[in-house]
Parts: sequence; structure tokens; C-alpha cells
Amino acid sequence: MRTAQLIYLALGALWAASTWAQPAGYAEMAASQAAANATPGLRKSPAHATPNPTNEVSPQMQAMIGAPYPPHFNADPKTAAEWKELINRRAALVIQGIPALKEKLGVNVTATQMAGVNVFVVTPKQANPKNKHRVLMHIHGGGYVFGPGESALPEAMLMASFGGYKVVSVDYRMPPDHPYPAAMDDSMAVWKALLLQHKAKHMAVFGTSTGGAMTLALVLRAKAEKVALPAAIAPGTPWSDIAKIGDTYETNEWVDNVLVTWDGWLGRAALLYAAGKDLKDPQLSPIYGDFANFPPTILTSGTRDLFLSNTVRTHRKLRRAGVRADLHVYEGQSHAQYGFNPDAPETKEAFSEIAHFFDQHLRK
Amino acid sequence: MRTAQLIYLALGALWAASTWAQPAGYAEMAASQAAANATPGLRKSPAHATPNPTNEVSPQMQAMIGAPYPPHFNADPKTAAEWKELINRRAALVIQGIPALKEKLGVNVTATQMAGVNVFVVTPKQANPKNKHRVLMHIHGGGYVFGPGESALPEAMLMASFGGYKVVSVDYRMPPDHPYPAAMDDSMAVWKALLLQHKAKHMAVFGTSTGGAMTLALVLRAKAEKVALPAAIAPGTPWSDIAKIGDTYETNEWVDNVLVTWDGWLGRAALLYAAGKDLKDPQLSPIYGDFANFPPTILTSGTRDLFLSNTVRTHRKLRRAGVRADLHVYEGQSHAQYGFNPDAPETKEAFSEIAHFFDQHLRK
Repeated sequence: MRTAQLIYLALGALWAASTWAQPAGYAEMAASQAAANATPGLRKSPAHATPNPTNEVSPQMQAMIGAPYPPHFNADPKTAAEWKELINRRAALVIQGIPALKEKLGVNVTATQMAGVNVFVVTPKQANPKNKHRVLMHIHGGGYVFGPGESALPEAMLMASFGGYKVVSVDYRMPPDHPYPAAMDDSMAVWKALLLQHKAKHMAVFGTSTGGAMTLALVLRAKAEKVALPAAIAPGTPWSDIAKIGDTYETNEWVDNVLVTWDGWLGRAALLYAAGKDLKDPQLSPIYGDFANFPPTILTSGTRDLFLSNTVRTHRKLRRAGVRADLHVYEGQSHAQYGFNPDAPETKEAFSEIAHFFDQHLRK
Repeated sequence: MRTAQLIYLALGALWAASTWAQPAGYAEMAASQAAANATPGLRKSPAHATPNPTNEVSPQMQAMIGAPYPPHFNADPKTAAEWKELINRRAALVIQGIPALKEKLGVNVTATQMAGVNVFVVTPKQANPKNKHRVLMHIHGGGYVFGPGESALPEAMLMASFGGYKVVSVDYRMPPDHPYPAAMDDSMAVWKALLLQHKAKHMAVFGTSTGGAMTLALVLRAKAEKVALPAAIAPGTPWSDIAKIGDTYETNEWVDNVLVTWDGWLGRAALLYAAGKDLKDPQLSPIYGDFANFPPTILTSGTRDLFLSNTVRTHRKLRRAGVRADLHVYEGQSHAQYGFNPDAPETKEAFSEIAHFFDQHLRK
């Protein structure tokens, strides 16, 4: 007791002589924040300057996390032509890197059609014998507007390469020419075509962001149409609520440096895709669907992700429905950053987690 | 094509006629935010007023999420006596509710000692036959200062009640009288005493916040001392990095309404407990320990939790070490709110998830 008291007094003296870790202006901030939050309801948070996270985050990922907002975050195309100009300009940036990425990741890509829908078949050059009968269907992201043609290939290629799976990536129709339900019709047509060639127990469906929401909507639609379900799914940070409903749409607004805010191009794309349909229709916002009997699901997000709430709400609804559902949240990452740089260790980590999950749940 | 174009034009007209979901002042905000974030590094976020989350969140939980900051969030006791006054005042608030909570949750509590350490044995009145040989050890939270005596019982009682397990809760010594390593010495002594009466394969260890960090530190110490490890652990939102290191210490600062900020009482308690030791010592910040061969682990947090990064960094380090580790993140919750109100469905949900996980990993 006496020793402890002495230590305590020594520490007390230390504190009295310094302000230790307390930042400048802290006392004023604490007082003004306490006053601003003295009544129930709205949570008032002050302006904040957040440094890059460093621990458990690779240098490559730190560079992505600390990057400025993308130039198009607040794009506001007024016509179909303006949308297309933006979509094609962004697609061209990705497509120019595809040949080198193919080489780097060791994958082959074939463009073909299934059920009249354009698809890309991505196969790893080094086949994994245990995946001989297995096929993954990939539904790309991009807010229902971005990612036409080859520009959606990087994620399919990452999965084929890091997971050793054959991947069929759906090049579904999109706005401005084709609003809902064209994208879902195309994805469903490819899923049914795949079921003619493969057993459901050998197949999984994955995709990020919009592709994650479409993966969930596909399972809802397959349930409704009594079509076989995939043996597992991996909706990465799914846009499960297409409206601005969910806590991190607010708390990570202006913090996430990929999507930045729902009120920019993202919300505009939501309305363009929905084309007047109720945003709470489970085919548009699958969080409002019935998740009973869903296949085992693995979800991925980041602490700065605008869609962290979309992800965890989906996780909780799946668990409440009794579904095996695994959640992976990466330190500091904004929306979908786990899929942007093949050289970041977190990219290999995220796709390896998903590949491992599929390996557990797909029959050989 | 023509129909889609017509729909698009109609929507365009609709937009032109309204500002749809765009909040007042949005354009100015977007411009000033883009300018503030035009260079790599610091992420500048503006002041924000965040409404209560509603979807997938119960009314009871909404009330907690929307509550004002706790009055002691910025407490700054200058002497041991001032610390004790604060600690005892907060403890008394909890202790007065214990008899009613016991009744409500249907548990019995016995105060006793193991290896000279005060413990409480909490047993459900309705025993679950499959848990006959199973025992859980509980290490309470409270920043290494709060939660003396019976005031730490609620979490142990929730687990005994919702999980149907016998729980031994460690009333470990704390600052200001007993800084590190007294708390860990006591917990380790109880763990060793339990091992004399029970098989490790029948036991798990759990705790929230400080109790979560101590759970991790206990496993590290048991590994070092070659003592048997529990069959599973449940560190809830563990204080795995006791220093202010981790992304959500920043992004959820002033957003979390339980801890609010590291720079308040929390950081003061960290230094009081550490008593001059390196804060990166794995016994103080277990995130810096080696997680190889850890038992299966279930982690719990919330999207507003100041310790969300502590939780997900721990999850990732466990996964990188090849450990089975499950992560559960609740929509909108601040630090440890899943354990505060026995009437909130999320409380039963969180403890049922943990109980189910233990049921999978503990021998019968």
C-alpha cells in the first residue's frame, strides 16, 4: 500500500509538471463538446484532422488512405452524354493498366457471352487442382454506373490469382441507358446459365460495393424464383442500403476518401439506377430482404468505410436469420481499398480470406 | 435504348426541379472539403451533427446511443483520494441496482476467494445441463480503475443468465493503490487456481474493454509461463493498445459517447496503471504480443466505438497468426454499449453470440 502510494504521488508530481499527451486546446474542446452534447439525440462532433493510421497498416495501404479525394467525388452529370463521358474517362484509366495487371497476376482473360450477356472468363495460369470443378461468379462494383467492359476486371483477376479459382465476371448493362432491373436481369441470366454447366455446390458469387449489393439481391431473387443458391457468397462492403440510411453514412462522411459522401455522384447514381423505384425495394436495397436460408457469407469493410454500416447491418441481419456470416474489418481503410492495389499486403490478405472461406464451403 | 433515355430525361427534369436529398450548404461544404484534403496525409473532416441510427437498432439501444456524454468523461483526479472518491461514487450507482438485476436475470452470486484473490461466483438459477463441467472466468472492465467489488458484476451476470454458464468474476486489485502488475497477478492467480479444479478444455475467459485487454494479456502470460490456455476467449472491444494509437481513437473521438476521447479520464487512468512502464509492453498493450497459438477468439465492437480499431487490429493480428477469430460489430454502438442494458435486444444478442461461440469451442 505504501509503495503504491509513493508511486502514485511520484506520478502525480510528474503530471503536475507537464501536460503529458493532452493536445493544445483540449480543455476548451472538452468543455464546448460537453455543452454541445448535453441533450439526447444528435451527436455533435467537431472538425478533426486525423493522421494516417500506421500500426497493422502497410505503407502501400497508408498511401491509399492518405490520398486526396478522387476528382469525381462530387461529379454532377446533367445528361446521359455527360454521364457517359465521365464513365468512359474513368474506365479508360483502368483499361490501360489491364495488360500489365494480367501479366503480373498470371491470369488469362477471355471475352464471351452467356445467355446473351457479355462476360469475361478469368482463369489463373497456375490452376489449383482442388478448384477443378469450382467456379466463382463475379459481379463488379461502381455505383451501378462505373466499370463497363474490361474496366471491371481487376477484382476478378485478383480473386483468380490470389484464390486460384476460375472466375466468370458479368459485364451487366448499366445506366444511363439501362436502369434497374437490367443489371439484375443480366446477372440472374448468367447465374442460371452457369447452373446449366455446374452444380450450385461448386459455385460462389462475389463482388464489392454495388457488386456486393447485387450479390445479396441475386440470392433474394434466386430464393423467390426457386433457383439453386450458390454454396457461399462474399459481398464486399455491400451497398445494401442504397439510400443514405446507416450510421457511418454520417460518421465517416468526409473521412472516407473513396466515396467521400452519399450526397456526391453516389446518391445521383442511386437515383439514376432506381429510375423512380422505391429505394427500399429489396432488389435495390437488399438489407430490406429476408435473409433466411442464405448461404454462408463473408463480408469485408474498413474502419473509415462510408459503407461500414451497410456491411455490419448486413452481418447482423444475416446472423439474426441464423446464417453463418463472417466479418472482416480492416484498420483505417476507406471504401473497398482492400481491392485497389495488388502490391498492398492487405489486398492479398482480403482475397485470401475470401478464397479460404469459399474453400471451406464449396464442394470439391 | 429509347425507353431508357426517356426515363433518364424524365429523371433529369425531376432533379432540375428540386434539390432532392442534397442538404443545405452541401456545395460549399464539398468545395471546402476538397480544398482541405487536396494533399496527401492528414484527413480533414468537418464538424458534423449525426442523428441516432434507427435501422437494425432497438429503441433501448437508440436511447443509449443518443445520450449525453457521461459527466466523468473528462475527470482529472489529482490525488489518490480524488481517484477513490470518483471510483466509489460511480461504483455505488451500479451496486444499488445489483439486487434487482440479480432477480431479473435469475442468477445467484457468492463472494469468496481463490488463491487469496477476491472473486464472485455467479451461477444461473436455471442450469444448462450441457454446461455442467464448464466454467467461464470473467475479467471486468473499467479502465483499470473502475469496477471494484460488486460494481463489476453486471457483465458476469449477463453472461451467466443469457449463456447459462457458471462464471467466476475476478475482483482484481486496481490503482490508485495497486498499479500494474497487481491486476494481472491477481487474474493469473485465479486462472491457475481454476486449473486445479477444472480442465482447460472446459473453460473460457471473457471481459470487456480493460477486461478484454487483460484477457489477451492473460493468454500471453499463460503462454510465457507454459500454463494451460483457455479453450476460447471473448475479449469484447479490448483496450489492446493502451496508448492513443489506432485509427478510431481519432475518427470516433467525440462521436463515442461512453469513452468520448482518450485524452480525458481514460488516458489518465492508462498512465496511472502503467506507473512508468512502457505502454507498448504486451502486458499493457497486448496488441504488441505474439498471437500464435491463441485459442479461438470472438471479438465485439460498434461502429461508433472509440476502440473499434483496438478491436479490428486485434482481429487482424489474430487472423494473421492463423487463429480462428470471429468479429461482431454492432450498428451505431459506442464503446461497450452492448453490455449496459439487459432489456436491449442487442445485449441478449451479443452475449448469446459469445455463449454460442463458447459452446462450439468448449468441451462438454
